Amino acid sequence: MKASTKQQTLVVSCPDSAGIVAAVSGFIADRGGLLVEANHHTDLQQSWFYMRNVIDMRNSDVSFSSFKAQFQEIAEAFQMQWSLRSANTRQKVVLLASRLSHCLADLLHRWQDGELECDIPCVISNHEDLRRMVEWHGIPFHHVPVDRGDKSAAFAKTLEITQRHEADSVVLARYMQILPTQFCEAYSGRLINIHHSFLPSFVGADPYQQAYDRGVKLIGATCHYVTEDLDEGPIIEQDVIRVGHNCDRQEMIRRGRDVEKLVLARGLRYHLEDRVLLQGNKAVVFS
Amino acid sequence: MKASTKQQTLVVSCPDSAGIVAAVSGFIADRGGLLVEANHHTDLQQSWFYMRNVIDMRNSDVSFSSFKAQFQEIAEAFQMQWSLRSANTRQKVVLLASRLSHCLADLLHRWQDGELECDIPCVISNHEDLRRMVEWHGIPFHHVPVDRGDKSAAFAKTLEITQRHEADSVVLARYMQILPTQFCEAYSGRLINIHHSFLPSFVGADPYQQAYDRGVKLIGATCHYVTEDLDEGPIIEQDVIRVGHNCDRQEMIRRGRDVEKLVLARGLRYHLEDRVLLQGNKAVVFS
Amino acid sequence: MKASTKQQTLVVSCPDSAGIVAAVSGFIADRGGLLVEANHHTDLQQSWFYMRNVIDMRNSDVSFSSFKAQFQEIAEAFQMQWSLRSANTRQKVVLLASRLSHCLADLLHRWQDGELECDIPCVISNHEDLRRMVEWHGIPFHHVPVDRGDKSAAFAKTLEITQRHEADSVVLARYMQILPTQFCEAYSGRLINIHHSFLPSFVGADPYQQAYDRGVKLIGATCHYVTEDLDEGPIIEQDVIRVGHNCDRQEMIRRGRDVEKLVLARGLRYHLEDRVLLQGNKAVVFS
Amino acid sequence: MKASTKQQTLVVSCPDSAGIVAAVSGFIADRGGLLVEANHHTDLQQSWFYMRNVIDMRNSDVSFSSFKAQFQEIAEAFQMQWSLRSANTRQKVVLLASRLSHCLADLLHRWQDGELECDIPCVISNHEDLRRMVEWHGIPFHHVPVDRGDKSAAFAKTLEITQRHEADSVVLARYMQILPTQFCEAYSGRLINIHHSFLPSFVGADPYQQAYDRGVKLIGATCHYVTEDLDEGPIIEQDVIRVGHNCDRQEMIRRGRDVEKLVLARGLRYHLEDRVLLQGNKAVVFS
Repeated sequence: MKASTKQQTLVVSCPDSAGIVAAVSGFIADRGGLLVEANHHTDLQQSWFYMRNVIDMRNSDVSFSSFKAQFQEIAEAFQMQWSLRSANTRQKVVLLASRLSHCLADLLHRWQDGELECDIPCVISNHEDLRRMVEWHGIPFHHVPVDRGDKSAAFAKTLEITQRHEADSVVLARYMQILPTQFCEAYSGRLINIHHSFLPSFVGADPYQQAYDRGVKLIGATCHYVTEDLDEGPIIEQDVIRVGHNCDRQEMIRRGRDVEKLVLARGLRYHLEDRVLLQGNKAVVFS
Repeated sequence: MKASTKQQTLVVSCPDSAGIVAAVSGFIADRGGLLVEANHHTDLQQSWFYMRNVIDMRNSDVSFSSFKAQFQEIAEAFQMQWSLRSANTRQKVVLLASRLSHCLADLLHRWQDGELECDIPCVISNHEDLRRMVEWHGIPFHHVPVDRGDKSAAFAKTLEITQRHEADSVVLARYMQILPTQFCEAYSGRLINIHHSFLPSFVGADPYQQAYDRGVKLIGATCHYVTEDLDEGPIIEQDVIRVGHNCDRQEMIRRGRDVEKLVLARGLRYHLEDRVLLQGNKAVVFS
Repeated sequence: MKASTKQQTLVVSCPDSAGIVAAVSGFIADRGGLLVEANHHTDLQQSWFYMRNVIDMRNSDVSFSSFKAQFQEIAEAFQMQWSLRSANTRQKVVLLASRLSHCLADLLHRWQDGELECDIPCVISNHEDLRRMVEWHGIPFHHVPVDRGDKSAAFAKTLEITQRHEADSVVLARYMQILPTQFCEAYSGRLINIHHSFLPSFVGADPYQQAYDRGVKLIGATCHYVTEDLDEGPIIEQDVIRVGHNCDRQEMIRRGRDVEKLVLARGLRYHLEDRVLLQGNKAVVFS
Repeated sequence: MKASTKQQTLVVSCPDSAGIVAAVSGFIADRGGLLVEANHHTDLQQSWFYMRNVIDMRNSDVSFSSFKAQFQEIAEAFQMQWSLRSANTRQKVVLLASRLSHCLADLLHRWQDGELECDIPCVISNHEDLRRMVEWHGIPFHHVPVDRGDKSAAFAKTLEITQRHEADSVVLARYMQILPTQFCEAYSGRLINIHHSFLPSFVGADPYQQAYDRGVKLIGATCHYVTEDLDEGPIIEQDVIRVGHNCDRQEMIRRGRDVEKLVLARGLRYHLEDRVLLQGNKAVVFS
């Protein structure tokens, strides 16, 4: 639901132990905060604890910065990795695309419609095709062609533009290039890709052709964080759609587009709402 | 996941206010309890709070009964409706069936396979057909025929048998009779039905024929608590399956059976694991 | 899959009898036509037969018009309702919308992307809001406000514009007005609506609020032909999405949009590809 | 729908050419047959044609054997692979199982309930566990233990029992052994397995552990024909179910069972109704 501007989201992960919830919820209650939404997860195998709290501070006189500063004590006591985000703060999300328009058009419409709560400082593409669509939405478009012989200059420029726009997160909306390690590391845990297959099936090139050749009865899409290991990063969201013998590769591509769009939009939304907590190469998603 | 015998589940609902989670989780932590699973829900419209905690008491020296007695104070302070159940306690579930075997066979197999954590003291049916199946599972079978002219005697006897077996909950596994108000009230919030349509579509008789006549493209099933108002009780779980022009009523019945079985099994499981909290005529399900 | 321009689609329905397929397929083979896709359905209850043939005429020297003229004889012999459409002919589809943009934006993008094989001569709306979006796609936009006191003038004008553009079909992309009988009859079997519920559940106003109040676990959307009886016309396509206790009405609306878009796009596609054959108030859909 | 005893199913695949449907449907009509159900598929890439006709011979005086003999001429003209099965003939299906009961219990109940139209001459298992369940259904149970050191004797005996019972098809209902080439070849295209993952994901051992480790958001099951290449045979049916971070391996196994049961039952049904036509390593399924 729509976040009030007096809300803030606290996300925590730490070694499991008794008293974490008591300490955190006591801290919140003592400062007049009201829990609007709370999600917990205990990974018994790893003995690790994950928590997300959406806190209504309407009746509190503790400022965001004081709350944050004071929480540091608890965080240290429990060895927490944590973040606190105010509903007033919108993430800056840079989108990368190539020629295929469906994912980009879908994200831009959701953004324009007020569904995606973020700012989009710019779109970067290695092709010119989507400029008109992007600019119609009032968003700057940067064309950074990638030279097959030497891609490094293009990636450096892409990274430079992304950083210049102070991107909090980056979304690959069917961007058809493999980003270098440096880029992946710069945006570790904040670089989101949509892969057009139900991973780990059909990694690599042309998954729809692979799916057609294998004769699967469902095709899918996977939204995941990009890591150095191609198609191996933590999975945020997946879904599938039914196909049959009457679906050739073209028809699979057509049906697949609908899944790609939905899965990317859902995954990005989870990310923007701080619903995704990393657990090694896996993602805890409080969906 | 499989519950350890040192676990207990605390379920709470109460008017929303600051400090509930802090009070409850503090209470648990003070007694050496460890949160294994926690679900919260705040209904902002009704200003009502719902919580379910699975607590590991392995490292605690507070007994179940002491824990329960001591919790009373918090419960009163926050005007809670609440329950505490030990993983050692299995609910007694009486099953009612008629002639159709699929839901009953499915539940009995899951129970035999150790998937449904409950005791089944008996099965009651208004027909003899399923006796052999029930008794093969080692469960007593009671045949209580329902006389069309005067059903009250049969229902009284059914209620008497159910109460004699000290049933905690009752499941209507395609039991084809409408139970009287007295029965519904005696097991309010503990009487589970599977309706063979996607409610509120197709209430009343022969929903598959209704679905066929209307030409819908999906048929469904609904697991709900029975109230006096037929087919109107709180919904626990629903699901659907695709049908097409090549499905006549018989084929819809056939496909529908698979959804009925799954939805009933899932709904019952949520109920047994104390995942269902009533909210007027709606059910909060921590699935 | 993409239709070649030498393809034509023959759609037939008639009383069932022996020899229909033999006669039709013999007719096609005799003229050098090759069956690319064929769908049959026999409604045994109504004793009615439905058939759709996609025919490749690449190796035929029989023209479209000769084929059509010669087929008349068979059609009469079997009392067929039938149509023959060349892949060269694109339907003209007029879209009606109000203020909500998601369905319209989705259809326009699919059309621009080459996925929807039709022409869109214009969009008509009772509000100005969507003009900019429509015109950016190079499509004329007509604003026909509907006066609450007397709606007839607006509907007459809407019908006039639709007819002036020689619309083959009309799509209500969340058009929030109830069209008069005259309009429904003028485009009988060619007037497509998207209803934001899983019909027959929640007919009438604000189905998401109704769904919220009833506590259903899935919400849906229904694409159907509009008839005089509101929300009662033949269903072309339906789908659902899961919701839970954490979904208020706003969140249901948000999730529902994704189903509405998909279901309308699929339904329209079936219609454009002549996959929908009417059977009284039901639709045979060769999907 | 339930097949009348005067029905027969004709299944054909052959190189694509003009006139196949005309020839076959003419042949049927000439003999007084009425098409009850017809499915066609043209693989344009391979230029291959697939057809399934369910024919009502109620008004025909041509016997099954004459029909079959006379059809030979057409079959040769078009180089068809084909089969004709009378609705009077039920396939004999031998089931192989190990210790897990869910798939076997599900199939046996469907069979007992009249849903699976086949005979089950016996169940063979490498363990004793399921004897009582099988025998309760009135079906002979053969215990053929598999010696880890030398499995060949056990497989030879399993094959011998299967052949002695004149099995038309064999189903591996979570049979935990890899059958030797000889067995696979003896029942090529008639040996059905349920694999507990969404192939081609997670081939090999313990797919649920693999799925857990990879953090996928959906798990699945695959019904396929067994070939020499383990987990690589033609896929008949697949489906998935949603999982989340709160699902450990045990919970995945539990949820997965429901998908396994459904997918195997559907796949077997397609097979028994002659809806599955092989196309190299892929299966055309007229579902």
